[in-house]
Amino acid sequence: MITKPTLLLDEKKCRKNIQTMCLKFMKNKVDFRPHFKTHQSIEIGRWFKKEGVDKIAVSSLDMALYFSEDWNDITVAFPVNILEIETINRLAKRIKLNVLVESIETVGFLNERLEDKIGFFVKIDVGYNRTGLNPTDTFSIDRILDMADSCSNLHFKGFLAHAGHTYKCKSREQVIGIHNKSVKLLTTLKAKYLKRYPDLIISSGDTPSSSIVDDFTGIDEIRHGNFVFYDLTQHQIGANKINQIAVAMVCPIVAIHKDRNELVIYGGGVHFSKESLVDEKSRTIFGRIVEIKGNSWGEIVPDVYIKNLSQEHGIVAVPDSKISDYKIGSCLLVLPVHSCMTANLMKSYKTTDSKRISRL
Amino acid sequence: MITKPTLLLDEKKCRKNIQTMCLKFMKNKVDFRPHFKTHQSIEIGRWFKKEGVDKIAVSSLDMALYFSEDWNDITVAFPVNILEIETINRLAKRIKLNVLVESIETVGFLNERLEDKIGFFVKIDVGYNRTGLNPTDTFSIDRILDMADSCSNLHFKGFLAHAGHTYKCKSREQVIGIHNKSVKLLTTLKAKYLKRYPDLIISSGDTPSSSIVDDFTGIDEIRHGNFVFYDLTQHQIGANKINQIAVAMVCPIVAIHKDRNELVIYGGGVHFSKESLVDEKSRTIFGRIVEIKGNSWGEIVPDVYIKNLSQEHGIVAVPDSKISDYKIGSCLLVLPVHSCMTANLMKSYKTTDSKRISRL
Repeated sequence: MITKPTLLLDEKKCRKNIQTMCLKFMKNKVDFRPHFKTHQSIEIGRWFKKEGVDKIAVSSLDMALYFSEDWNDITVAFPVNILEIETINRLAKRIKLNVLVESIETVGFLNERLEDKIGFFVKIDVGYNRTGLNPTDTFSIDRILDMADSCSNLHFKGFLAHAGHTYKCKSREQVIGIHNKSVKLLTTLKAKYLKRYPDLIISSGDTPSSSIVDDFTGIDEIRHGNFVFYDLTQHQIGANKINQIAVAMVCPIVAIHKDRNELVIYGGGVHFSKESLVDEKSRTIFGRIVEIKGNSWGEIVPDVYIKNLSQEHGIVAVPDSKISDYKIGSCLLVLPVHSCMTANLMKSYKTTDSKRISRL
Repeated sequence: MITKPTLLLDEKKCRKNIQTMCLKFMKNKVDFRPHFKTHQSIEIGRWFKKEGVDKIAVSSLDMALYFSEDWNDITVAFPVNILEIETINRLAKRIKLNVLVESIETVGFLNERLEDKIGFFVKIDVGYNRTGLNPTDTFSIDRILDMADSCSNLHFKGFLAHAGHTYKCKSREQVIGIHNKSVKLLTTLKAKYLKRYPDLIISSGDTPSSSIVDDFTGIDEIRHGNFVFYDLTQHQIGANKINQIAVAMVCPIVAIHKDRNELVIYGGGVHFSKESLVDEKSRTIFGRIVEIKGNSWGEIVPDVYIKNLSQEHGIVAVPDSKISDYKIGSCLLVLPVHSCMTANLMKSYKTTDSKRISRL
């Protein structure tokens, strides 16, 4: 029996999300390197293996270490942290490791300290303005590549980008627009360097584009992760339907305030994180309540949503006509706003078939 | 050597914060029941014991279980989750346990299922509008107390409030205003019920009031927690000085973008949480950088701050004149916006004397 905030995982929905993506990229003849930072679980990783996936991306060297038990080809899709050189060397002895580089300082350091060969991507900024080199900055790109060419333990794999600005999109058209612009920048860059590096690849990937776009011409490898669970943010962008969201938090009702049509649930910022979205009615939403259906869940309950979160408390708004339906000691099922952050806060999953699934 | 995001704890500053509060309430002759949800550590808890503290508050039954190894008198300052009755019974056999109640449904359930005596507080809403009964709603309060009087395992301890709306204050005067109003509501209530319950107490506490106010007349017990570390939010309210903040995150620099005067650090939402504040220059701040000083830290570096966070990345704004001072592979020290959420995300502390301190 569930007695406290628990992240419920619908294995069927999750496996379906994985299968759909694998099929999509197989059809498109694009290599698929799913990002495992969302689920962070060896066991869920095996569901990808079953669909033929043989390489992954992660966002930290700790995650790479954890998954290296099971995976032989891992890209750490984060600007390489040279302070962790010992972990890099440990991993490079056991698996095919790729890292991201965007400066000659990093290349110089790696050249001095690497004990085995690793692959590297040059990180390109396609407009998100978080990390990476401007694709027109061939001066900096050349300096990195010229230096790396003389490093026996550094193998240039290609250019890697993350169009994270799609997460701010309000429509599928906006997402497609960003994707097309990003592909154009990356393929122009590839054309420039292809003669010198005939095997270079373009690695790209964010859940909105990867879910919405159908034509991936120009991209060699797709690398995204949130789709494994999806969430309310991706739904708002148009990346998934509500019935594709594969995780929901079980939250006990601990108090009822009929005078202001609110429930208090045990489920706060330490469970969900405090990410929110603004819905079509201009309401700030920290999570939406879904109907309980068998051992899983069904549709969204209209106008019942988390309106505020503190550390352990969630405040749920309920229409006047429905407030009497709720009882202290019963549980709500809540779809998260951002499943990556929510899954990161919870230490394990419980499947709708009552299996416990552990994670890093 | 620190190679990845690590929460550094300055034990001296932390012990000083604890001592200052203990002295303050001893002088004021108010009982002190510090809230341990901020640090969540048995070892840090012992620093309170050394100062004479003999009772604590926590925000979940899991935390109560963890601290019950070391503490004999624990209030779970969260509306009691009746689904966890087994944990309540387990705890009630070993320690003096107090819970919060605000409905007769909860009283009825506890009466049926409790195996040992526990204390309870009626939760009062003094204006934060999160949980609790309105202090003028004596109809509901009477119903709870009438029912509880006939429950052999329920002992009424008094009224408990949390003036959490002080966290939104912009000045010390606003905090004092809320505190005075809250005390007036609570003492009026106490006067009404004192004849019937001569031992009833008023338990209150939030870090802004407890830090700023000097006169606690009317309050019997103070119960707050953030002050153990303090943070940038409390500093903005006026509750602490910068040199009282006892935790800072060590974050390696992984990329430098001179074209836009930004550093990229390894340190994101999974380390800090995504809480932010708006400073006096209308900038959104997710953390401030402090000078490294010996094995601890000194003053804030002006105009160097985290301007954005994603899952693992922090983007640090740096003035044009200073961008060349920073190097890839060196570390920044970052003061958190909300230390409770940050400490909750990190699995342990490292003291400035290089001790590892574990937590729940």
